[in-house]
Amino acid sequence: MAEILEEVTKTQHQVRLDRLAQVAVNVGLGLAAGQELVITASLDSVELVRAITREAYKAGATLVTTLFSDDEATLLRYQYAPDASFDRAAGWLQDGLANAYRAGSARLAVAGGDPSLLAQQDAKKVARANVAFSVASRPALELITTHVINWTIVASATPAWAHAMFPNDAPDEAMEKLWNAIFAASRVLDDGAVENWRAHDAQLQARAAYLNGKRYSALHYTGPGTDLTIGLADDHLWLGGGTVAGNGLHCIPNMPTEEVFTTPHCQRASGYVAASKPLSYQGTLISDIRVKFENGRIVEAKSGTGQQVLRSLIGTDEGAARLGEVALVPHSSPISKSGLLFFNTLFDENAASHIALGQAYSSCLRDGHHMSKAELAAHGANESLIHVDWMIGSAEMNVNGVSVDGSEELIMKLGEWV
Amino acid sequence: MAEILEEVTKTQHQVRLDRLAQVAVNVGLGLAAGQELVITASLDSVELVRAITREAYKAGATLVTTLFSDDEATLLRYQYAPDASFDRAAGWLQDGLANAYRAGSARLAVAGGDPSLLAQQDAKKVARANVAFSVASRPALELITTHVINWTIVASATPAWAHAMFPNDAPDEAMEKLWNAIFAASRVLDDGAVENWRAHDAQLQARAAYLNGKRYSALHYTGPGTDLTIGLADDHLWLGGGTVAGNGLHCIPNMPTEEVFTTPHCQRASGYVAASKPLSYQGTLISDIRVKFENGRIVEAKSGTGQQVLRSLIGTDEGAARLGEVALVPHSSPISKSGLLFFNTLFDENAASHIALGQAYSSCLRDGHHMSKAELAAHGANESLIHVDWMIGSAEMNVNGVSVDGSEELIMKLGEWV
Repeated sequence: MAEILEEVTKTQHQVRLDRLAQVAVNVGLGLAAGQELVITASLDSVELVRAITREAYKAGATLVTTLFSDDEATLLRYQYAPDASFDRAAGWLQDGLANAYRAGSARLAVAGGDPSLLAQQDAKKVARANVAFSVASRPALELITTHVINWTIVASATPAWAHAMFPNDAPDEAMEKLWNAIFAASRVLDDGAVENWRAHDAQLQARAAYLNGKRYSALHYTGPGTDLTIGLADDHLWLGGGTVAGNGLHCIPNMPTEEVFTTPHCQRASGYVAASKPLSYQGTLISDIRVKFENGRIVEAKSGTGQQVLRSLIGTDEGAARLGEVALVPHSSPISKSGLLFFNTLFDENAASHIALGQAYSSCLRDGHHMSKAELAAHGANESLIHVDWMIGSAEMNVNGVSVDGSEELIMKLGEWV
Repeated sequence: MAEILEEVTKTQHQVRLDRLAQVAVNVGLGLAAGQELVITASLDSVELVRAITREAYKAGATLVTTLFSDDEATLLRYQYAPDASFDRAAGWLQDGLANAYRAGSARLAVAGGDPSLLAQQDAKKVARANVAFSVASRPALELITTHVINWTIVASATPAWAHAMFPNDAPDEAMEKLWNAIFAASRVLDDGAVENWRAHDAQLQARAAYLNGKRYSALHYTGPGTDLTIGLADDHLWLGGGTVAGNGLHCIPNMPTEEVFTTPHCQRASGYVAASKPLSYQGTLISDIRVKFENGRIVEAKSGTGQQVLRSLIGTDEGAARLGEVALVPHSSPISKSGLLFFNTLFDENAASHIALGQAYSSCLRDGHHMSKAELAAHGANESLIHVDWMIGSAEMNVNGVSVDGSEELIMKLGEWV
């Protein structure tokens, strides 16, 4: 009886929060009874973390452990720590995580940090800390990116993120708007969210299978400010929606997800392209990006704001001026329809078709996981320290598939699947 | 200038919180520049954790990592997790901690949980979960208890703890009362707290050195309801205040600390004793404990409330009915003067002279760390799964030191050092 009364008196916010938790655990993670679960989240996400913890135990998790991060503590480090700090990372903790994954634990990340947390900090220290963290977390990250375990990422509203998106609203109103945007984008507004997610997943997988059947050699994008042909990598593989992890469990690594994506050939892009949305990169907003490619490489790059940051980004290494991902997203996706810029890749990359500078995914090549670096390069897969998505799709964008014989057929018209 | 203004506008609460953090880092931990620091704390302690993080970075910490625990998540486990959960613990995390300590990290625990968090949960599940956690955390705990690294425990007020202590006050008022009690007990009410702590530490060490010089064979307690003689272990060692850890750093493991303590001979207690304060044990209050010892073993045990829990505690194993610690605390200690029962051993054991049932500390024997189990037992050191302190000291208690020849001399009179 107490349970029933509790259900009745839940607010709509609580209902949707619980639904997001159910979808995250049962569809996103595909958690199996008897699995452990590790969650990473910011302190501000504790409400969603508790809902996920409850759903995970209901689904049979033997133990749920959450590693909370604290933005305030991160800032205190930049403010007070000795210089040597910025070459350090908690390797003992990352090794522990890798051991948890090897022992069968699932992994859920709650996204939602302050998008400009480090914008005012010394960029060199930020870069050094990122490198130290990357090195320390590599063993754990590899078990995730190669899908040895089932994992997912979902988002929680946080005050700093809400303020970044809705700076003119009172804190409570901004939080409510962001939560509603997350619920809509994550497809948990209504009853039947678990079934709807399974159908959505099946549709993305069917779309990827269709494109894999076509074996296009390139994509040809046309629209305002854009006439770009991007060659696809040899043996490229389109992916979309969920995946079966090495432990046999079906998971959907990103929630929301609206994209099908593959690996371009890093030597074969040519033409020009205009971004359809600004890019938020480490606290800097880069607007009106216009870029020209020759032989896969950027030879001209301009922007409205953030031109210096854009050039520095492209100059990171040789691969940073080349493409590592192409992704197709219909203009009618819930995130696109919201008209919001989230300052968060998990959302913004699912608002529009996009391309990414930098590192390619070996999972987007047939047998890519078993290829050496030299084999990956021979197939056209790009290599770089960065991987930065930016939006080029819009309601005015057409995309043609280009066959090996040079013939073209329309696959997206005015931003929608044909 | 901004810094100065900030200092000026700090509330008294903030000043004392920062002072507690300074004392914890610089005296409690004795943190060395270049050390990492691992903090464990409940989510409710984030205010103190941030102050400690700042002080640690100021003192030269290269990295501060806090592992937050969430009482709500713990309760969700008891509410929803499958039965198998209660034999599990996050071994990967405990092993990670042990690796951090081996690599030189210091360790700070923030105490302050809900004293009756698990009081309503299935006692068998609680016991199983405790056993699983004890097994998993043993390697990390051994590096702490054998003082390989520098470590300390300090307390933060939390709403649940404040409510337990001040159930008739509004939440804000209860929190303020608890914070003030913690600040007073932790000796950070006034300026000069770091110097005062060093002086206090020196005094405790001098007291322990004095008692070590005496080589008493027993202590004889007399007071209302008490006439008890407790034999001291062969080669017993009195300890008090700080210690030099294996890494050469001076730390004070408990803040507050008011006690000097040593290991009794577990075969040599005889007489009767009445507790001077109730014992809060896993959510149950055991009042008016009266116990009779023969040959070191409890032969009669009575209490007002909680008699069943007391008997079950004593019956845990053979060593649970024998003594593992004797500690002397003057009745004039700040905690005793507060007149408060904290439901937290860190405080309550420093309010009055006390004895503990169960496991003895090998550190309270000369060369104890190098002794085998058999050697420890031969010296009279007790062995048990439990270690539970209870208060026997009061303003009416006298304590005599008994020499090998049977002669007695007064060392505490009416609760105070002679």
